[in-house]
Amino acid sequence: MTEKLVYITRRERFNAAHRLFREDFSDEKNLEVFGKCSNPLWHGHNYTLLVTVKGPVDPETGFVMNLKVLSSIIKEHVIDKLDHRNINLEVDFMEGKLASTENLAIQIFEVLNKELSSFNGISVHCIKIQETENNFVEYFG
Amino acid sequence: MTEKLVYITRRERFNAAHRLFREDFSDEKNLEVFGKCSNPLWHGHNYTLLVTVKGPVDPETGFVMNLKVLSSIIKEHVIDKLDHRNINLEVDFMEGKLASTENLAIQIFEVLNKELSSFNGISVHCIKIQETENNFVEYFG
Amino acid sequence: MTEKLVYITRRERFNAAHRLFREDFSDEKNLEVFGKCSNPLWHGHNYTLLVTVKGPVDPETGFVMNLKVLSSIIKEHVIDKLDHRNINLEVDFMEGKLASTENLAIQIFEVLNKELSSFNGISVHCIKIQETENNFVEYFG
Amino acid sequence: MTEKLVYITRRERFNAAHRLFREDFSDEKNLEVFGKCSNPLWHGHNYTLLVTVKGPVDPETGFVMNLKVLSSIIKEHVIDKLDHRNINLEVDFMEGKLASTENLAIQIFEVLNKELSSFNGISVHCIKIQETENNFVEYFG
Amino acid sequence: MTEKLVYITRRERFNAAHRLFREDFSDEKNLEVFGKCSNPLWHGHNYTLLVTVKGPVDPETGFVMNLKVLSSIIKEHVIDKLDHRNINLEVDFMEGKLASTENLAIQIFEVLNKELSSFNGISVHCIKIQETENNFVEYFG
Amino acid sequence: MTEKLVYITRRERFNAAHRLFREDFSDEKNLEVFGKCSNPLWHGHNYTLLVTVKGPVDPETGFVMNLKVLSSIIKEHVIDKLDHRNINLEVDFMEGKLASTENLAIQIFEVLNKELSSFNGISVHCIKIQETENNFVEYFG
Repeated sequence: MTEKLVYITRRERFNAAHRLFREDFSDEKNLEVFGKCSNPLWHGHNYTLLVTVKGPVDPETGFVMNLKVLSSIIKEHVIDKLDHRNINLEVDFMEGKLASTENLAIQIFEVLNKELSSFNGISVHCIKIQETENNFVEYFG
Repeated sequence: MTEKLVYITRRERFNAAHRLFREDFSDEKNLEVFGKCSNPLWHGHNYTLLVTVKGPVDPETGFVMNLKVLSSIIKEHVIDKLDHRNINLEVDFMEGKLASTENLAIQIFEVLNKELSSFNGISVHCIKIQETENNFVEYFG
Repeated sequence: MTEKLVYITRRERFNAAHRLFREDFSDEKNLEVFGKCSNPLWHGHNYTLLVTVKGPVDPETGFVMNLKVLSSIIKEHVIDKLDHRNINLEVDFMEGKLASTENLAIQIFEVLNKELSSFNGISVHCIKIQETENNFVEYFG
Repeated sequence: MTEKLVYITRRERFNAAHRLFREDFSDEKNLEVFGKCSNPLWHGHNYTLLVTVKGPVDPETGFVMNLKVLSSIIKEHVIDKLDHRNINLEVDFMEGKLASTENLAIQIFEVLNKELSSFNGISVHCIKIQETENNFVEYFG
Repeated sequence: MTEKLVYITRRERFNAAHRLFREDFSDEKNLEVFGKCSNPLWHGHNYTLLVTVKGPVDPETGFVMNLKVLSSIIKEHVIDKLDHRNINLEVDFMEGKLASTENLAIQIFEVLNKELSSFNGISVHCIKIQETENNFVEYFG
Repeated sequence: MTEKLVYITRRERFNAAHRLFREDFSDEKNLEVFGKCSNPLWHGHNYTLLVTVKGPVDPETGFVMNLKVLSSIIKEHVIDKLDHRNINLEVDFMEGKLASTENLAIQIFEVLNKELSSFNGISVHCIKIQETENNFVEYFG
């Protein structure tokens, strides 16, 4: 019998400052490529993070996995590092990366995939980050 | 010529009471596993249900299927059974199942897949249930 | 010089079960007056609570009052008593009251007005409770 | 080494009038098939359009593609043709098509797929159109 | 003893076509004053209507007034006249009025105030109409 | 005859960095009073601004005032100064003020009240700023 896979999603939020720029670009080049997102004095966002995990339903609990456990793993390894922080200067898993939403999604995927690897049958399916009400990014590994 | 598949989604809502627990667990064990969701005096939610159906576009109507028809099938076979009800005690398709959102999604998928089987070329693609603004579940069959 | 009054609002959420009925009504009368909201086996909602407090801006902090303090007062005196609870059976400040959203708003206003009375210059302006996406209630004292 | 594919989505909006009907149907037949959507004097919607594009992350910019560029392509080729327009009478890419959301999604996909074909490695993944808060359509090509 | 006044709000929705223009203006003048909203071939919106009614809480029911009754009065006298209609051509209470959201709010207030005048102690407090996610209008009589 | 007053609201958005702190406080004191909002390396938000203007309806246009005009005044005098900026360091009307949402609302009220003073019969009724989905501030002058 094939197991029925179910996808569960937990939403978390963080507020952070960032700046899009390259040190090897001149100020003019940064402005040309990144527009006002390159402001040297920073700007920021209310980011919404949606973590989707897939796996079979545990017949004992009716859960793919306990959402409280998922939430505290996300909080410890992702939210606490980003919330009320400067993404360019203070977040270990973003060191050396451009602080774009694309890179943020890829890095959060890697962090959570590693943290969830000990849960049998569970895997991270998608990391979705909503930066503004008009823009979001998804990464499926 | 390959047909173009389009996915259409209908959103419906229901308000229900439920409780997460196992009769073969002690009260302490239920509290440990299910937390405050195990409250013996119940709690409840405004559930949002998203039913996604896929199929080719009917050249006569421009529709995958008439959304009014889809909506009334969902209402008759799902919403009327859940709305202002106790999921543990009053819903035939949840009998003997833990009242988790995962199980609810699987059961609603089965009910609607059966009801829509007489529509040529149409199939249920996804059942998504939003339990709170921070948690949702998806099942694709 | 007149002080500038500013209104600040904190949103909190709770999920609860309830039932609208009167013991002195027959089942038929309850059904007639309260409809499916009178279901003896309960139903429930994701309630959204908006607490608006007004007062002058403290020149030292730029705050009307610290929102963390406001949030923890709301959590201790309101949310912890309602969340994952049965409003009819388990909430002290609703004892002997019909579990309508109107009564809930009035009682929460009284509770918070008392708790905030020790804050100089601050008063509760409005309690707003959203029961579903189509219904909400406001009480201004 | 396999490239990491990331999906980025841009949300745009347009307000338009339309009518669902067939010239080869009588008024009665149109009413029977399309209901009040067949009103000869039109009705309208606030449509929300979500354009999802997929591609690898450019190591120089951290972007799949610049969202400002994507937004202006969508505005020029889609929004400017639809916004504050009559979909049945004024939109070139809808000529001869029933003005259903399904057909709108397919046509917008074709338009944007052609406009984005000159961007290396980028392709349109999905066109999603939300017609009301209860109905949306997705087309993946 | 002063009665406690509570405000209850019911949300309803309608989709309609309209056009902003004056017959005594030239096409150029209409375009200058009303912009693309003057398109002679119409455009439309998903309008959201919020009707706020105030009154004392009935001690027998815990209600200001039964929301089902309020909803059906709004549906009969307002929504059924506007939904899937052309506001300029088909709505009796808008005859001879410019189809602006301001005028719509005033007219709906008058209609509902009259319909609710037979309910003891109840009055319409506010009509709020959301035309797009960025624009709304309120009228308090 | 008394004129009918109508309230119209325009929503605009800006993304900015800020920090809550006092120069005359030690780092420890700032952390104690302002919590993680005092992070010296900044954080940021997607702020939503709702500007409510009241006035009589112009019988020629059906408008309290043209929303395009209102929107461009808000953009020129408020949004362009705040969007993608550092509220503490780059916004002239916030110089010397603590960068709290309360102060932001008061200052924006003053700026817009002055800019709209030349419009006959129109006045700013309320400035509402939503900082996160759980917190907002209103100032009525």
